[in-house]
Amino acid sequence: MNGEELNSHDWQEALQLSKPDRVAWIHEKCLDQELLGHYRTKLLTSCTDLCGELGLEGGEPIKTWLQVENLLQIFKDWGLTRSSVVVTTGGGALSDAVGFAASIWKRGVRLIHIPTTPLSAVDAAWGGKTGINWGGAKNQLGTFAEPLAVHIDAQWMRTLSPRHFRAGLAEVAKHAFLNLEAFDDLCAHTLSWPPQNKEEFDLWSTLFVKSSNVKRQIVADDPEERGVRCILNLGHTLGHAVEAYTSGTSEPWLHGEAVALGLHFTLFEISHGVWTMGNCQELSHEQAKKLSAILHTQVPLPQNWSFTAEELWNYMAHDKKNVGNEIRDVAWRGVGHILWPVHWKKKSFEATWSAFVRSWEKFSQRATSP
Amino acid sequence: MNGEELNSHDWQEALQLSKPDRVAWIHEKCLDQELLGHYRTKLLTSCTDLCGELGLEGGEPIKTWLQVENLLQIFKDWGLTRSSVVVTTGGGALSDAVGFAASIWKRGVRLIHIPTTPLSAVDAAWGGKTGINWGGAKNQLGTFAEPLAVHIDAQWMRTLSPRHFRAGLAEVAKHAFLNLEAFDDLCAHTLSWPPQNKEEFDLWSTLFVKSSNVKRQIVADDPEERGVRCILNLGHTLGHAVEAYTSGTSEPWLHGEAVALGLHFTLFEISHGVWTMGNCQELSHEQAKKLSAILHTQVPLPQNWSFTAEELWNYMAHDKKNVGNEIRDVAWRGVGHILWPVHWKKKSFEATWSAFVRSWEKFSQRATSP
Repeated sequence: MNGEELNSHDWQEALQLSKPDRVAWIHEKCLDQELLGHYRTKLLTSCTDLCGELGLEGGEPIKTWLQVENLLQIFKDWGLTRSSVVVTTGGGALSDAVGFAASIWKRGVRLIHIPTTPLSAVDAAWGGKTGINWGGAKNQLGTFAEPLAVHIDAQWMRTLSPRHFRAGLAEVAKHAFLNLEAFDDLCAHTLSWPPQNKEEFDLWSTLFVKSSNVKRQIVADDPEERGVRCILNLGHTLGHAVEAYTSGTSEPWLHGEAVALGLHFTLFEISHGVWTMGNCQELSHEQAKKLSAILHTQVPLPQNWSFTAEELWNYMAHDKKNVGNEIRDVAWRGVGHILWPVHWKKKSFEATWSAFVRSWEKFSQRATSP
Repeated sequence: MNGEELNSHDWQEALQLSKPDRVAWIHEKCLDQELLGHYRTKLLTSCTDLCGELGLEGGEPIKTWLQVENLLQIFKDWGLTRSSVVVTTGGGALSDAVGFAASIWKRGVRLIHIPTTPLSAVDAAWGGKTGINWGGAKNQLGTFAEPLAVHIDAQWMRTLSPRHFRAGLAEVAKHAFLNLEAFDDLCAHTLSWPPQNKEEFDLWSTLFVKSSNVKRQIVADDPEERGVRCILNLGHTLGHAVEAYTSGTSEPWLHGEAVALGLHFTLFEISHGVWTMGNCQELSHEQAKKLSAILHTQVPLPQNWSFTAEELWNYMAHDKKNVGNEIRDVAWRGVGHILWPVHWKKKSFEATWSAFVRSWEKFSQRATSP
């Protein structure tokens, strides 16, 4: 299957059907220049008036209140109306921040996202969540603003650093843990990065499109996250805490790296039986082997980390999923078997975290010993 | 019919059914203290945890970016989650600003509005529009956030100045121009303000509930204002321009006063036949008399105004309803007969405005001459 053919015409058709009075393009600065030119041509053939183009630094630091104010000023200068469309091309942080600004500008300018990272291709660009960080907590402000279309093309990822590319695979792994078909699909995927030719890029695009479908199906049942959509937060309660905690340090973790740690921690629980609520589905030997392969080859953890349970707990207390003073989480009981909500007590979290850290240290020593 | 009985239990029931983890109450400072006490008791019997109560100045000046930032900080201090509910009690500016902040806090805290002015009772509290002013233009930023419930009780209005009370009747008049039943209802309404007893307050509450139903029906067909909802902007294209223009002067007009001028202007067009597009429905002599009575007794204009067409045009160019460079407006062709969109050319607006001003001056001289 050709990944580009899967969805390439859809976004241009969606743009034309939306009959925009103006179209604006906001993309990351440091993308492949040739590809930017290629897409600029596509945009110009799809609309009558490209009223503005803006290159921004991508990454989490743009998700600020101040950046939103800057974007609103630019929307004003461009004369965007409620009939306009903003096309974003970048990672999840860019589509989150630009999406938020667009969603409050005149109560909503429409959006089309062209994600340029694995993370945004399978997660951030889908489902309409926009957001910025605020008051030290991640995505504390935001809206639901479903884009008109999302277009995935893995060629955008060729300029990504290996670190950023790999981090994004954590969400691909998460979708695999939520859905048996995606699990088998990811296990069968043997391509390496970077691809050697156009066909290999297309195969990656296809993997991302399929993985994103796991999210799309879940979101369709609960667009405003009042119920089942919460299971997409697998690994994220701890992940967001790690991300928030490290964001103030000299070595901030990427979202995908933090989610990778969250997934390792969440899946550790089941194998050690520390959680007592709910029933665990037995993993077959075969599945356990595949699971381990995904965890250790697709979402390896960063080296040299050390967080105390106390540090993480304070950040977990700010999670948006909480109700009142309870800390709510998503528990994993086998591929596609999810428990939501489960509630953490501080003591049981501390015990589980200590056990996880000890276990991880043993694993690391084993892995690095001759 | 008893106005309070019409809707008083609904909001408390809606609050209980929403199972909030926390409830916060934000109201205007200068409301009837006894009534505030009465409603505080109602709130405390409807929820387990009133986590915060905040008194704010009401009015258009609170609809700022800075005020939203303050509110977000307060939401954080109160520990509001996505399962919390914010109850507002105040005029439309308060519910607009608080509603906007609530709608972006963790992607949406739920709302209940208790409007305390005619304007908010029949208009602002309904239909889910939130917003603040920005970059010199009204409601440039906002969201759609439908409240769980709206509760109308005219007793809140007893502390309103006559100027503020009267200004709010402009929206009641607008609904009457949009809907024959509401038109006849308003014509039949002979009560004066302030009411002399509880029964008269209840009759006013009933009038407001009925008037608000005109808006509710229209909004239900088009919640995000992509079509028919635009007819609710009757009188508002000019009205918003007057409001924005005067907001920078020493004598800012109230929203309702500006809409009153907008309605007079919009309805003037038909009687003078300056507009040539579309067909005019003939008004019966009886209807014309009623129309005139509503315009001159329910929505009289402020004294001593003078705006040039040029001044108003510049502000009209910022209207959110515009598409591209066209200025779009809503035209009136008889009770319940609305044309949308109609497009202004600058020259025809200038000519219509001059004719309107001349006609108004003659009318004023006649009205004040002995």
